[in-house]
Amino acid sequence: MSPDSTPLPTTLCFSIQDQVGGLETVLAALKSMAISLTRIESRPSKTVTHEYDFFVDFDAKDSAQVDSVVDQLKQHTKKVCVIGAEANTKGNTPNFAPHPLQLFCGFLDSVAWFPRKLADLDSFADKTYRTGQPLPTISYTDEENETWGAVYRRLTAMYQTHACREHQYVFPLLEQNCGYSDKGIPQLDAISRFLKDCTGFTLRPVMGLLSSRDFLNAFAFRVFYSTQYIRHASKPFYTPEPDCCHELLGHVPLFADPDFADFCQEIGLASLGASDQDIERLATIFWFTVEFGLCRQGDEIKAYGAGLLSSFGELEYSLSDAPELRPFDPAKTAVQKYPITEFQPVYFVADSFKDAQEKVRSFAAHSMHRPFSVRYNALTQTIEVLDNKEKVSRFAKSIRDDMKTLTTVLESLA
Amino acid sequence: MSPDSTPLPTTLCFSIQDQVGGLETVLAALKSMAISLTRIESRPSKTVTHEYDFFVDFDAKDSAQVDSVVDQLKQHTKKVCVIGAEANTKGNTPNFAPHPLQLFCGFLDSVAWFPRKLADLDSFADKTYRTGQPLPTISYTDEENETWGAVYRRLTAMYQTHACREHQYVFPLLEQNCGYSDKGIPQLDAISRFLKDCTGFTLRPVMGLLSSRDFLNAFAFRVFYSTQYIRHASKPFYTPEPDCCHELLGHVPLFADPDFADFCQEIGLASLGASDQDIERLATIFWFTVEFGLCRQGDEIKAYGAGLLSSFGELEYSLSDAPELRPFDPAKTAVQKYPITEFQPVYFVADSFKDAQEKVRSFAAHSMHRPFSVRYNALTQTIEVLDNKEKVSRFAKSIRDDMKTLTTVLESLA
Amino acid sequence: MSPDSTPLPTTLCFSIQDQVGGLETVLAALKSMAISLTRIESRPSKTVTHEYDFFVDFDAKDSAQVDSVVDQLKQHTKKVCVIGAEANTKGNTPNFAPHPLQLFCGFLDSVAWFPRKLADLDSFADKTYRTGQPLPTISYTDEENETWGAVYRRLTAMYQTHACREHQYVFPLLEQNCGYSDKGIPQLDAISRFLKDCTGFTLRPVMGLLSSRDFLNAFAFRVFYSTQYIRHASKPFYTPEPDCCHELLGHVPLFADPDFADFCQEIGLASLGASDQDIERLATIFWFTVEFGLCRQGDEIKAYGAGLLSSFGELEYSLSDAPELRPFDPAKTAVQKYPITEFQPVYFVADSFKDAQEKVRSFAAHSMHRPFSVRYNALTQTIEVLDNKEKVSRFAKSIRDDMKTLTTVLESLA
Amino acid sequence: MSPDSTPLPTTLCFSIQDQVGGLETVLAALKSMAISLTRIESRPSKTVTHEYDFFVDFDAKDSAQVDSVVDQLKQHTKKVCVIGAEANTKGNTPNFAPHPLQLFCGFLDSVAWFPRKLADLDSFADKTYRTGQPLPTISYTDEENETWGAVYRRLTAMYQTHACREHQYVFPLLEQNCGYSDKGIPQLDAISRFLKDCTGFTLRPVMGLLSSRDFLNAFAFRVFYSTQYIRHASKPFYTPEPDCCHELLGHVPLFADPDFADFCQEIGLASLGASDQDIERLATIFWFTVEFGLCRQGDEIKAYGAGLLSSFGELEYSLSDAPELRPFDPAKTAVQKYPITEFQPVYFVADSFKDAQEKVRSFAAHSMHRPFSVRYNALTQTIEVLDNKEKVSRFAKSIRDDMKTLTTVLESLA
Repeated sequence: MSPDSTPLPTTLCFSIQDQVGGLETVLAALKSMAISLTRIESRPSKTVTHEYDFFVDFDAKDSAQVDSVVDQLKQHTKKVCVIGAEANTKGNTPNFAPHPLQLFCGFLDSVAWFPRKLADLDSFADKTYRTGQPLPTISYTDEENETWGAVYRRLTAMYQTHACREHQYVFPLLEQNCGYSDKGIPQLDAISRFLKDCTGFTLRPVMGLLSSRDFLNAFAFRVFYSTQYIRHASKPFYTPEPDCCHELLGHVPLFADPDFADFCQEIGLASLGASDQDIERLATIFWFTVEFGLCRQGDEIKAYGAGLLSSFGELEYSLSDAPELRPFDPAKTAVQKYPITEFQPVYFVADSFKDAQEKVRSFAAHSMHRPFSVRYNALTQTIEVLDNKEKVSRFAKSIRDDMKTLTTVLESLA
Repeated sequence: MSPDSTPLPTTLCFSIQDQVGGLETVLAALKSMAISLTRIESRPSKTVTHEYDFFVDFDAKDSAQVDSVVDQLKQHTKKVCVIGAEANTKGNTPNFAPHPLQLFCGFLDSVAWFPRKLADLDSFADKTYRTGQPLPTISYTDEENETWGAVYRRLTAMYQTHACREHQYVFPLLEQNCGYSDKGIPQLDAISRFLKDCTGFTLRPVMGLLSSRDFLNAFAFRVFYSTQYIRHASKPFYTPEPDCCHELLGHVPLFADPDFADFCQEIGLASLGASDQDIERLATIFWFTVEFGLCRQGDEIKAYGAGLLSSFGELEYSLSDAPELRPFDPAKTAVQKYPITEFQPVYFVADSFKDAQEKVRSFAAHSMHRPFSVRYNALTQTIEVLDNKEKVSRFAKSIRDDMKTLTTVLESLA
Repeated sequence: MSPDSTPLPTTLCFSIQDQVGGLETVLAALKSMAISLTRIESRPSKTVTHEYDFFVDFDAKDSAQVDSVVDQLKQHTKKVCVIGAEANTKGNTPNFAPHPLQLFCGFLDSVAWFPRKLADLDSFADKTYRTGQPLPTISYTDEENETWGAVYRRLTAMYQTHACREHQYVFPLLEQNCGYSDKGIPQLDAISRFLKDCTGFTLRPVMGLLSSRDFLNAFAFRVFYSTQYIRHASKPFYTPEPDCCHELLGHVPLFADPDFADFCQEIGLASLGASDQDIERLATIFWFTVEFGLCRQGDEIKAYGAGLLSSFGELEYSLSDAPELRPFDPAKTAVQKYPITEFQPVYFVADSFKDAQEKVRSFAAHSMHRPFSVRYNALTQTIEVLDNKEKVSRFAKSIRDDMKTLTTVLESLA
Repeated sequence: MSPDSTPLPTTLCFSIQDQVGGLETVLAALKSMAISLTRIESRPSKTVTHEYDFFVDFDAKDSAQVDSVVDQLKQHTKKVCVIGAEANTKGNTPNFAPHPLQLFCGFLDSVAWFPRKLADLDSFADKTYRTGQPLPTISYTDEENETWGAVYRRLTAMYQTHACREHQYVFPLLEQNCGYSDKGIPQLDAISRFLKDCTGFTLRPVMGLLSSRDFLNAFAFRVFYSTQYIRHASKPFYTPEPDCCHELLGHVPLFADPDFADFCQEIGLASLGASDQDIERLATIFWFTVEFGLCRQGDEIKAYGAGLLSSFGELEYSLSDAPELRPFDPAKTAVQKYPITEFQPVYFVADSFKDAQEKVRSFAAHSMHRPFSVRYNALTQTIEVLDNKEKVSRFAKSIRDDMKTLTTVLESLA
């Protein structure tokens, strides 16, 4: 198949005036174009000007077709935001406008495709699961449960001395509420419900490998992709790829911590629409934090990375004198080389999860090349692209309203 | 069965110190009590002190048993918050402590039971639906669809002159996205997804009648109970009780408006744990706003109440010179008598939904008798009871973090 | 003297890039123009772009000269903001740009001159006092002190029943701290220091009559112009114009109330650079609130206007059944006609000072025609014109920093 | 005179109920005590409960007398806050209550005396100047002006390469607005007015030596004590103590930077009522930042400490390879030893002034032993002690009001 014929998944976002028949006219225009539409949604614009927002997904034949569609839409709207298309496939840093004001007046160059709402995760390559379905329960064999038990006993014996306080704090709750024990592998459903209550994180099962982009994008929604596979019983203390010991013992406990959850979501938000190079930098940051991070707690260094907390060998090594420790600094961490088949020679130490989140936020704002800001609207479980002053204004009002709630609460306490 | 033997659904909330074996000790203590436990959850406390929160549901035989359980728990915790039990059944205004400081040092008198998380709605009397299930699709008969069509045509003809701007603005979107038309009754699932995208509101089907308390409590989670039944075809312009014409034409469009959604949730939050008298006052406010409210828009008065927007007779009457109009003022509105089988003699006029929300917030803070404040945590879909300074502090930090996001966004726009 | 030769006081505000010699080049250019310069200030821009702000005051011969100066400045700067000049003298609503973006890219049409910092009040017509000087102490005659005493005794006897709670609350403090008594007229200096401690309000002595514009503009800085003159002893209960009985018994006590102080400043901020028509509307609002306002307190109506609190006749009348009471609503209040030599037929009733402030803020934002927003920076005692996103961004950061302080405080309380 | 007879300056703060005659009763009680009263002020409490706050200054004979006075006040008030007295003189860490709740219910142990409002600085030992007076103009001799000129030329030649960006940015403004040049020593008055416009900082002249406590306390009010003396002409490049070259070339330019000003005030706020040990730690932080601080700017290190910017020898040395550089970390910096008569062997490098401020705020909150929080109220130029929930609530409301202003501004920009 020639490269030309690979379809380019593309989302167009644009707004139209609220006028009689306006919605139908645009719908008709879209349908009259010879394009492979996969979804058309119209929504209220959440701004005060009573416009309508359109979100249109289609599989473009090539970037020329995208240009043509955008061109035809110009008679209905002032600005079309293109998410996906060439930026996504060519992997180039988009050739962005030199001045952000262009966002308010003209046509935005395209950015890599990203999910705008929770259900959009269903369009990722891995189709193991669809939003809204119950999480699958797995019947593990006795051998699998025994492998889990062996790993469980060996690792939990080390947590009190090696794991960070947050991991130790949550672990007993997982035992009491989610069936964690050395008797068998716990099920995702109970764990996901527990995490939802704690921080809003949820788990999604995955079979194969996700791209870094898809994996990080899901973090923007506080979604973690977890495999349900377990390593082979013949080598209980070795696994060539992440398995459920890694996910459930290494990752899960931390997702119950509010500050850690905020930190992960910050990485996720930074990854939305990022260029391929920026995705690689964020994936490296992810590697040195969520996977292999150390943190300072009082006068001690402890482990919070799942890669450490699921490997007693590297867990011990990481807190020995052997490796080099450096302060977590996104600009430097993002470009640090690392081996993937041996213990890390370098670890990065975070002062706190809140501090690490701040640093990532600042890094994303100043060192990445994305011409817009985003926020996660937890009520609607959607990403809001803060690309104009009206949306920023709406966001500010939501903070003002929270301040009103806070002052009411303080008054009633006083 | 004697009244004494009616079980009292009761929730106990308490916190214990984080110490080795602490969780198990309390679990064992609970199991050793001869009570009918329906749920035990332990969770991280979301405060900085690393305590564990317990939430225990049980069916108490009587209030003496509740007292006994609380008494036994005193050796494990400083404070037990009792939700439900006698307050719920006796309908008394709880005999609250004269000073809010008691909240921090002692035992709280009980308050009426209320749901703390979305799934808790499953414990309401109506069992039509459980959280997480897909919304049921109904196969309506041709006759039912024709009844709908007749009502649809007659009402939509009036909206442009009588409905508030927000209703008019959203209506075409429902036609384009949710199958609204005079051809047949649209299905709840598409509507609920649409509302979720707009404001985070979702629909839940219901068969029978809900109590005012349950109905209003659900609003705290942005959940609206919607019947799927339709009036009899013999009298298309009359219905003795709310049917899907009322729900889908009257209520649904407004739930897509962010300010109206905030207003409804404010009523819902005020209803959590409220005394029976306060529930009645809130239900009256609901009646004169969400059901029969008028609002000022520029120099005109328009209808936004669902009872008006689903009845062309009263819709016309309400905007005529016949009824008396008064400004919406919760303290007065809450005690206004009203007929339920004829047109209202008095309507209340809101300046805006935001203004109405402010007034309800202030009314709840100053005129109701609830000894604690609540907020909805949209990430976890739970209610946070802000009964101590640590939780207020955590809330303030979330606002501070939002302010950080806002300043980052403003900086990148500038 | 021909109208042409009346000098037009004009302020130009503009920014230049930070480059070597840039400041001197502009200074030289200004000095080379044949204009009557009265002040040149250059300041850091308080934004992140390291520009320099210039503030240049000069007396223009005519508007043509202003145009010419602006024209010459174009080679040094992108945008010149003209405060004063023709807008001020012709009294026209300035012909403002249709789109706020013009503020960021082009030349702003001129607005009426207004003070940007506290010392700018020195350029008002009345030269009784200069910023920084000590407040003059007056040696009143025995006769004058006796007149004061007679008024004092008669009015204070009525306050407990007629004055608002805030007035009653502060009055004993004025007696204890500022020498209020029926023995003699207290001095401005002690009163001004007291008010500064309470709310930051200060008094400035004035001899003659100030224009409404100057009087209201001073409120933006929490400055109240107070006469030191007292009515003639022959008619102790009558004064043809405001005297110190009116100022010190009517006005001063309220300025010690934080919410009332905020309300007054809100009017002041709205008046900065306002058109002559808007000044008239604000002066009418001032008349019906600060001078003749009533307010609701619980189930009662009380007086807070200084014109009432310094006239026992009208104080009694205003709370009788005779006059008409209407709710305070800036849009309506601003255009209400009123007599100035007899008791008011109509009074406006505020729900609270905070509510009145909100209403004025909303009125100023939506019903006035000023193409920029302002805030008072209390640290620098200057007005910040929020005409670009960088300044808004800086303001948002100051709020974020306050939120950080608040969360630190809450944490330490918790 | 025996040590016993040294008077202990003491401030008592307490609140009484608003009741008829309450103020006079307390005043009479105070006057009947045989104590050396220096000031009695009563003020509105700024909380919603309509209490009155008293601030009483007196010179205690000994701590027993303080105890006795507090004891007598107990019949009028629930809580007396003692500022000064033994804590101040014995230099002990006050023996604070173990639980912050004590603040709300009982008697607070005493803390070191601190100024609560700007005019309180007049009670410091150095009486060179009183609040409200004009700043003195000095007639420097030709020789003195020549000494200044020599220093000026030599230092300004180095700034472009060695000084931080903020210093370089402001310097030309001082030349244009405040008379900075090599022709003669500029006068404090013009400089203080300039700084007031920029950041609200003001200068106060001082003759002798201030204690660290007094010097740092003044920073809480954005006041900097500046000597007007100049080094001897015989050794123009050496001065044994701070002179006006140090103050005006080293310190002043930075005070015009908003972030630096915030940083300095943060140190000042932390110093109010601090124990003697904490004062010493803050003075050491001051030494390594405001006096000898380096900062990172892009990939370079630059000087911002006044001790460096006023000494070309150490300025050059500090940016050479000779000294050791460490990251600024208050906990470590506060206990670093330093020589005062030779170049520093160790410098601390700040990432930014904002970051340094955050670190000091966090240090003050977590590592110092002060049982209350403070904020500076710029409107009233007073320190608010946030020792109860009502004051915190009032602070939160001021933030909420700022958020309302911000959303109004954003709306008008949008």
